Amino acid sequence: MRILPPVAALLVGVSAVSADPLPSWQETDTKTAIIDFVEAVTDPDSQDFVPRADRIAAFDNDGTLWSEQPAYFQLLYALDVLKDKAEADPDILSSDALKAANDGDMAGLMASGKDGLIELLNVSHSGLSVDDFMADSRDWLLSTNHPQTGIPFAQMTYQPMVELLRYLRDEGFETYIVSGGGVHFIRAVSDDAYGIPSQNVVGSEGTTVYDVVEGKGTLMKQGGVFFIDDKAGKPVGIDRYIGKRPVLAVGNSDGDFAMLEYATQGDGLRMGVLIHHTDAEREFAYDREGHIGVLDQGLDEAVDRGWLVVDMAKDWSRVWTGQQ
Amino acid sequence: MRILPPVAALLVGVSAVSADPLPSWQETDTKTAIIDFVEAVTDPDSQDFVPRADRIAAFDNDGTLWSEQPAYFQLLYALDVLKDKAEADPDILSSDALKAANDGDMAGLMASGKDGLIELLNVSHSGLSVDDFMADSRDWLLSTNHPQTGIPFAQMTYQPMVELLRYLRDEGFETYIVSGGGVHFIRAVSDDAYGIPSQNVVGSEGTTVYDVVEGKGTLMKQGGVFFIDDKAGKPVGIDRYIGKRPVLAVGNSDGDFAMLEYATQGDGLRMGVLIHHTDAEREFAYDREGHIGVLDQGLDEAVDRGWLVVDMAKDWSRVWTGQQ
Repeated sequence: MRILPPVAALLVGVSAVSADPLPSWQETDTKTAIIDFVEAVTDPDSQDFVPRADRIAAFDNDGTLWSEQPAYFQLLYALDVLKDKAEADPDILSSDALKAANDGDMAGLMASGKDGLIELLNVSHSGLSVDDFMADSRDWLLSTNHPQTGIPFAQMTYQPMVELLRYLRDEGFETYIVSGGGVHFIRAVSDDAYGIPSQNVVGSEGTTVYDVVEGKGTLMKQGGVFFIDDKAGKPVGIDRYIGKRPVLAVGNSDGDFAMLEYATQGDGLRMGVLIHHTDAEREFAYDREGHIGVLDQGLDEAVDRGWLVVDMAKDWSRVWTGQQ
Repeated sequence: MRILPPVAALLVGVSAVSADPLPSWQETDTKTAIIDFVEAVTDPDSQDFVPRADRIAAFDNDGTLWSEQPAYFQLLYALDVLKDKAEADPDILSSDALKAANDGDMAGLMASGKDGLIELLNVSHSGLSVDDFMADSRDWLLSTNHPQTGIPFAQMTYQPMVELLRYLRDEGFETYIVSGGGVHFIRAVSDDAYGIPSQNVVGSEGTTVYDVVEGKGTLMKQGGVFFIDDKAGKPVGIDRYIGKRPVLAVGNSDGDFAMLEYATQGDGLRMGVLIHHTDAEREFAYDREGHIGVLDQGLDEAVDRGWLVVDMAKDWSRVWTGQQ
């Protein structure tokens, strides 16, 4: 063992503290496993070294980078937009699904199935430009408080994950969001919230058309469903936007299963991570059952597939970026 | 005028030569206009300064970054694949369009219209994995010579444009291809040919599906038409992949009109560039008429819209990256 003189030891001490890339992660095996992986693929002398151009990391958003309870934030946004619109023009409530949504009757909305949700999206996410939609979404995310925590939605991002994203970028990774949520909704805040620019956000999409409006070329949202970036759609979205198989994929539900499978079956060292919502006290506890963020197959197969399961209650010293 | 001592003069001379970012461009007003634009948007003291994150440059591919005569290279590839397949199994020639294509009867193929082309694409671009398709495309592009020049297709990239792409990246731009061509076909060589990685290639697409093949998650090409990244589709593709309005857009045909319009109507200093094929001696001369790369509306409106028209014969001292 090498003995360091006091000043050098102090410097090492300071350096070690300030160098902790994941201060909101507890000192558990989970944190060690993540850091070991990153060090292995970034060390040029390691047999697991991955060139910078191939260091692609893909993150789900809802339930992985920010909360998704009591419902996806984008759904809560859609409901607010619907209520505003219905106040000005009650005739837009042209179906049972929209009436239920406007009354806050979630069971009634869910009973209408996918068609009802698409109706809601069409009313709340179309007939305006992409720029206007993003400005409105951004305003809502920054200024509306979560019903249970009182924290603005845009601050219900997970501090440990924001640290992980930054750590990966510092180590030469390109970080991507690959979400079932709408691409424009996420982009409205992704740069500020996560340091992820618009071109690194892969998501679901309605139809967008280019039109010359009052002499100016404008992208207009027209509703409908162009692409669902969920389940087997996630590897397809990754191929479309990125064209490379990620070396690291992080999700929290069975909607991310295909993405983790795709990423971890590539050649060389790979890592798949599932965020397990175990923290009823600080956040929400849910997994195998429910309507949102169901994690069932993932829990069954994580061990066999060598995926890391993050136990939010045990592995995180802090949950949200925003303070309660 | 400042008098430099001989050694310093020599160094300045060397520096000036090696610092020319566009050595294959003639010293014309066109070159000056491009450099003036780049200097204006990258100078922090300029009123036209654009932050690095917004320095998005979008380039068409066929006819802008590489040649497109006597036909799009991807079409020539599809015909070669069809011939190979038909030799092994003549039954695949199940329509007049495919028979014409196999016989090299381009008029017959064109007579079948869009449906015939889609049939050809379906036979040549489906039923294999994305990885296998890209490996095959790459091999073809690297090893097949152009019928007129004898240069391998992958080297029929324009040297002045390769220099422009590099210059822009050196100045903090993010360079993108936004092409009507197929995204997988272009990605097969885009990094080597242009220094453009797969995630910066926006293109047209058939249907891709994720499937577990022999236990391994695989992306399979299934043919069909999922998205056409041409004309008004180009701004839509830009929004989907990039989510930012480019400050510079470069094309060569009316298929690029909407992209140039969209880019140049943004706030602040913008630049639209059209490559005009004027060089019958060294390349090909064509514009307002024909089946490929028609440039008609663009020529009519370029002056009024302030777009720069590059005269290949006058503005370029060299054409292809590969040597004839």
